[in-house]
Amino acid sequence: MSEKKKIGLIRVLTTPDQELLQLHGRMIESCFPGLSVESRCIADQDEGIHDEASHAKALPKVLALGRAFADENVDAVYISCAGDPGVGILQRELAVPVVGAGTATAHVASAYGVSVGVLGITDDVPEEIAKILGGRIVGSLRPPQIHTTLDLFRPDAMDALAEAGCALKSKGAKLLLLACTGLATINAAPELRRRVGLPVLDPLRCAATCLWTALC
Amino acid sequence: MSEKKKIGLIRVLTTPDQELLQLHGRMIESCFPGLSVESRCIADQDEGIHDEASHAKALPKVLALGRAFADENVDAVYISCAGDPGVGILQRELAVPVVGAGTATAHVASAYGVSVGVLGITDDVPEEIAKILGGRIVGSLRPPQIHTTLDLFRPDAMDALAEAGCALKSKGAKLLLLACTGLATINAAPELRRRVGLPVLDPLRCAATCLWTALC
Repeated sequence: MSEKKKIGLIRVLTTPDQELLQLHGRMIESCFPGLSVESRCIADQDEGIHDEASHAKALPKVLALGRAFADENVDAVYISCAGDPGVGILQRELAVPVVGAGTATAHVASAYGVSVGVLGITDDVPEEIAKILGGRIVGSLRPPQIHTTLDLFRPDAMDALAEAGCALKSKGAKLLLLACTGLATINAAPELRRRVGLPVLDPLRCAATCLWTALC
Repeated sequence: MSEKKKIGLIRVLTTPDQELLQLHGRMIESCFPGLSVESRCIADQDEGIHDEASHAKALPKVLALGRAFADENVDAVYISCAGDPGVGILQRELAVPVVGAGTATAHVASAYGVSVGVLGITDDVPEEIAKILGGRIVGSLRPPQIHTTLDLFRPDAMDALAEAGCALKSKGAKLLLLACTGLATINAAPELRRRVGLPVLDPLRCAATCLWTALC
């Protein structure tokens, strides 16, 4: 058995709750025992990234964390946000591989070659995801009552997401892409797969599989 | 535990050897217990696909197998060849998801946003991989003594592959993409990762992870 590969994971939701902070890392480690994850979050973003202003505010903090991880000799840096703040910059700058949740998921979606429905927490498709998938996106929906990743913990969130997923299916989507890693936090993919009847891409799993295939 | 998802796997190397026929499927099942794989190979291609003529000869046979799998209600069809014969056609035609090894790997490679070296058994980069990665490819190499997937079983194959991998690294590759699923058969990725010192993408694993993320 070879040594585990160390991933530096960046959360863009500020939290003092250690369990919540570690959750994405633990999910990756449970799926891929060859990966070992250290998680850190940026400061002062209690609602994460959910619009242009919160994205801009997060960017320098994400870059600083990514550079710090690289200085500590991680094997890869992973930015656990479908908005991909700083991903392109860090990919050009760092010597270690860098993966972002949104870009990873959009590229994995491209492998299917079919029409994609984007389900998330923002009115617009995150910019990098839109660039990668282009005309393959048949629609994008945010359930009306969900504005930030915290709203995903509401008891009616799954019903609202399934309804949006069905609407995207009726618009011609053959695959659903979850455009917020908060949807991984609540493990929405298996339930949506059952209720909507389409393959569903979870951004945390997509990023984890990209890391696993290249490193392990 | 939900029911396993059934993958119809198409081998483009004709073989009566049941162990060899089942090998890719077994590798997928061992990494992802939520997937169950049935493997079939096309007829009369004892050297697999390794040039334009063998690709063209394989195409109608791959399409027929893909359609047969879809009629048998598999959850997805996987074409285990980096040349991706028939992948685009079947993606447009079938109601179930279709993944090809080469296109899946090229899309996963795109998630890293870095320069890619392509290591394979053909003089040119397989067409679909070249289309997806475009200018991101800094070079492509086939070890001189390796012409078909069968040559990968030669005792000196790994040395030749590692040498080619190092040459691609010196040309600026930050990531190696293995452009033949025969390289998965001999499990070349971990050894090349150690000897070349770059992340290495195995096409079988990339395709399997795409299937797992969308279906499980």
